[in-house]
Amino acid sequence: MRAEIIAVGTELLTPSRLDTNSLFITRRLNECGLRVMRKFVVGDRQEEIRGALEMALQESEVVLTIGGLGPTHDDITREVVSAALGRDLALDDALVNGLKTRFRRAGYQLTDNNLRQARVPEGAEPLVNPNGSAPGLFLKEGKALLFLLPGPPRELEPMMDQVMECIRKHKQVSQTFHRRLKVASQSESVVDAAVGPIYKSYPQIETTILSSPGILELLFYWVGEADQEMAEGQLEELQSRLADQLGDSVFTDQEEGLEEVVGRILRESGQSVATAESCTGGLMGKMLTDVPGSSEYYQGGVVCYSNSLKVDLLGVDRDSLERHGAVSQPVAQQMAVGIRESTGADFGLSVTGIAGPDGGTSEKPVGLVFIGLSHDKDTQVQEERFPGSREAIRMRASWHALDWLRRTVLTS
Amino acid sequence: MRAEIIAVGTELLTPSRLDTNSLFITRRLNECGLRVMRKFVVGDRQEEIRGALEMALQESEVVLTIGGLGPTHDDITREVVSAALGRDLALDDALVNGLKTRFRRAGYQLTDNNLRQARVPEGAEPLVNPNGSAPGLFLKEGKALLFLLPGPPRELEPMMDQVMECIRKHKQVSQTFHRRLKVASQSESVVDAAVGPIYKSYPQIETTILSSPGILELLFYWVGEADQEMAEGQLEELQSRLADQLGDSVFTDQEEGLEEVVGRILRESGQSVATAESCTGGLMGKMLTDVPGSSEYYQGGVVCYSNSLKVDLLGVDRDSLERHGAVSQPVAQQMAVGIRESTGADFGLSVTGIAGPDGGTSEKPVGLVFIGLSHDKDTQVQEERFPGSREAIRMRASWHALDWLRRTVLTS
Repeated sequence: MRAEIIAVGTELLTPSRLDTNSLFITRRLNECGLRVMRKFVVGDRQEEIRGALEMALQESEVVLTIGGLGPTHDDITREVVSAALGRDLALDDALVNGLKTRFRRAGYQLTDNNLRQARVPEGAEPLVNPNGSAPGLFLKEGKALLFLLPGPPRELEPMMDQVMECIRKHKQVSQTFHRRLKVASQSESVVDAAVGPIYKSYPQIETTILSSPGILELLFYWVGEADQEMAEGQLEELQSRLADQLGDSVFTDQEEGLEEVVGRILRESGQSVATAESCTGGLMGKMLTDVPGSSEYYQGGVVCYSNSLKVDLLGVDRDSLERHGAVSQPVAQQMAVGIRESTGADFGLSVTGIAGPDGGTSEKPVGLVFIGLSHDKDTQVQEERFPGSREAIRMRASWHALDWLRRTVLTS
Repeated sequence: MRAEIIAVGTELLTPSRLDTNSLFITRRLNECGLRVMRKFVVGDRQEEIRGALEMALQESEVVLTIGGLGPTHDDITREVVSAALGRDLALDDALVNGLKTRFRRAGYQLTDNNLRQARVPEGAEPLVNPNGSAPGLFLKEGKALLFLLPGPPRELEPMMDQVMECIRKHKQVSQTFHRRLKVASQSESVVDAAVGPIYKSYPQIETTILSSPGILELLFYWVGEADQEMAEGQLEELQSRLADQLGDSVFTDQEEGLEEVVGRILRESGQSVATAESCTGGLMGKMLTDVPGSSEYYQGGVVCYSNSLKVDLLGVDRDSLERHGAVSQPVAQQMAVGIRESTGADFGLSVTGIAGPDGGTSEKPVGLVFIGLSHDKDTQVQEERFPGSREAIRMRASWHALDWLRRTVLTS
């Protein structure tokens, strides 16, 4: 069953702003087998909103508009939709009272502009917006279900539960079947070559590889008829064959980040980590502390961007720095040992490298990174060459280090 | 003059992937006065590509498609466009030779699939792709200029120069006039209230405020007839009135980030900074080192996520931690002094706070952050309360600290 999304807002046509709501909406729609087949982004202009709406309603069973329900003069989605469908707008008493209460409580005056938000097209049902003054709207138009939703994510996201309920009530939707695998420390081409021959034997499963620097996500969607037993069985079989093939580079089959997995594994094993970062400049610490409660297993660390900090705070010896340079095996080794010893953490994790764009030589090119991992019995260093921009190299180096920590904790 | 963008790719309709190329394209098109009036995102499917193309060509003078020019079976943009416009596809000898050379050098075999990339619709001109095997294409269709571009950003972005040249050659485009101001350490509502009364007196200037946690960007576009002298004069007047109103919270009128401005100011003054981060966990160091060459003025620092690291690496006294807690004025003060003294940097910058979502109390709620700034003559601490999610609080705290450093260096 097909769905379409129309994001409304002139700011979404500037060089600095993207519609991101459609990602959240797509995830929810996919839950009940709806596939998003097209997205429009249009400005706050009557002709474009109307054109997109007519095109979408012709072809899709579910259509959602995002934005343009606010109180200001450029918010016109409600009015344009009503006009396009030939439905009159009338004030809804319950919505008017709700707005009055809301404004009284906040100590603001209710203006005529705000009252526009209580207008409802003939035959439409309001959707409750717990976090804002603009209610959503639900309309049936021919075979299509049409939803008008507000633009701010914190208003829109909780309202998607009501949308899903309406869809389930009015359409014969299927459950959808999907699986995922997330992989670190592997290039897309290696993963592609490994999985290509396997997933070709599952013609009813569609595979997508989403890549970001250092992390790959493999998504498997069942696209055939929805026979639950068969779909689940085949998805599980494909997933487990691929997991075997990809080995310990698979870090989860759930919707969670590597930083969360690392945190969980450390917490479960009762161990802690400290970091010593040169080229990543704090990124690895930032990733670890993106997880609430990370203080349980992350002590902190040192960002030793200058050589003197490597010596003063981590005890790297000057001789190694002079003979081998800051980007070298011995320095990565001493950084990892130094941060472990000075913090008393179970693991010391270090990164030193050349993130570019300048500073590379033929011997030590941009992308060369040494990663050190130290625990009480052993300290090892990996030498890696990461492709991409400064940002990508720093991301890859950080994820690679965290993934090595994960594999080490799991096997130690 | 209006432009439209059609992004092609089934992966762009999944819950995890957005078309980001259109931001770059929009920025370039705006340079010559072209406004993007609509964006489509469609899958690799004939009907949707064709539908979007026909709708766009009817209404816009410049249409760009992104993606679907690759060698695999799901890349069909070239073929669908040719069919929709009724133009035959023929192999272009120069492109065939280019592909042969490219593949021979890389040691790969040229397959029939790859050869498809050398096919050109009747009357189209190829656009050189320096970073990939898929050439772009330029076609005139009625009053419209149509460009087919490859999807990978590193291929597409350099090709936009050729696109801009074609547009300037075939269309009477105007120069466009715009200005910007970037602001830190201010909330959107404060900025909105300050600038609202001023920009109302410039009806021919459209103002957009782009906000991200901790940073606001004000964009001013001239939307009237393009009389250069008048446009530039009014934009400059508006910009300078707003800059006066917003004072030293304006950190640039250029397209540069706060981390770059801080870096430039430190470099120019020959001074350096070191950081002591608790709740931001390395984010501030990451931001500073996003700038190539930041080692000139950033020495590094300590991520003291645990209390013991605050004591051991920064010399915070245990008594202060016990009496006032880690999130307190005295601890922020001692962290700033400690990192400055242990590194010898000119400035020590510290952050300690409660990023949430848990860990807040009525006395010390989520969002409470102390920021310390120390130099040889003085150490000061600011107490702030930042709204939003864990991520937003960490961003706001980091930008606020960097902005305070900027203002201090400028006036010291």
